[in-house]
Amino acid sequence: MAFTSTIDEHTILTDTGNDNGGNNEGPGPKRLMLASLAGCTGIDVVSILNKMKVEFSELSIDTEATLTENPPKTYNHVKVTYKIKIAEENRAKMEKAVHLSEDKYCGVMAMFKTFAKVETEIVYL
Amino acid sequence: MAFTSTIDEHTILTDTGNDNGGNNEGPGPKRLMLASLAGCTGIDVVSILNKMKVEFSELSIDTEATLTENPPKTYNHVKVTYKIKIAEENRAKMEKAVHLSEDKYCGVMAMFKTFAKVETEIVYL
Repeated sequence: MAFTSTIDEHTILTDTGNDNGGNNEGPGPKRLMLASLAGCTGIDVVSILNKMKVEFSELSIDTEATLTENPPKTYNHVKVTYKIKIAEENRAKMEKAVHLSEDKYCGVMAMFKTFAKVETEIVYL
Repeated sequence: MAFTSTIDEHTILTDTGNDNGGNNEGPGPKRLMLASLAGCTGIDVVSILNKMKVEFSELSIDTEATLTENPPKTYNHVKVTYKIKIAEENRAKMEKAVHLSEDKYCGVMAMFKTFAKVETEIVYL
């Protein structure tokens, strides 16, 4: 059940768990989609904050999602939580960066929005 | 721009290319979605063929996709090509396995279908 994906010079292994006949050698393909989502909006936020010359640290992005009950199971609700250490006077800029990613730049999020309700939250560390 | 995603005990690195300010340390998040698609339908096909007790080898899955022109750029057309070595008398079973994945089981494909036209093809080796 394990597949090695070659994307340019990079290699990603996906698999399924023992209970589905796999060996759990890599993340499940559906969960991997959430890494696409976090990675995509993360690139936007970093590049927007850099353009605004705003300093920050400890940026991490958590995704949490629920699936429909019946197969084919698809995500119906996704919550994206951005955690970041940033000066209080720059919080409005962080909010702007997240909104720009959500509404204008992040193609992966735009695709997710066609099948799921996507919610975002910022947590200041 | 590089993000390390932790999915259960697995770690995936995404990044962006030098021309976007990244270091190309991992696949781009949008391309990673295609690995989710191939991995998901691959698990279905393998498990259906196993259940049918059909022998096969050299299964690989290629994905090819086009993006919309304006940001947020989303996939609008995706072609999934299954390559497989399988006895001629089992080809109809391979077609059935692909159709079951497309229509009934593959959640990732069902999600892709909400934003893109998804086409499948089987190539017998």
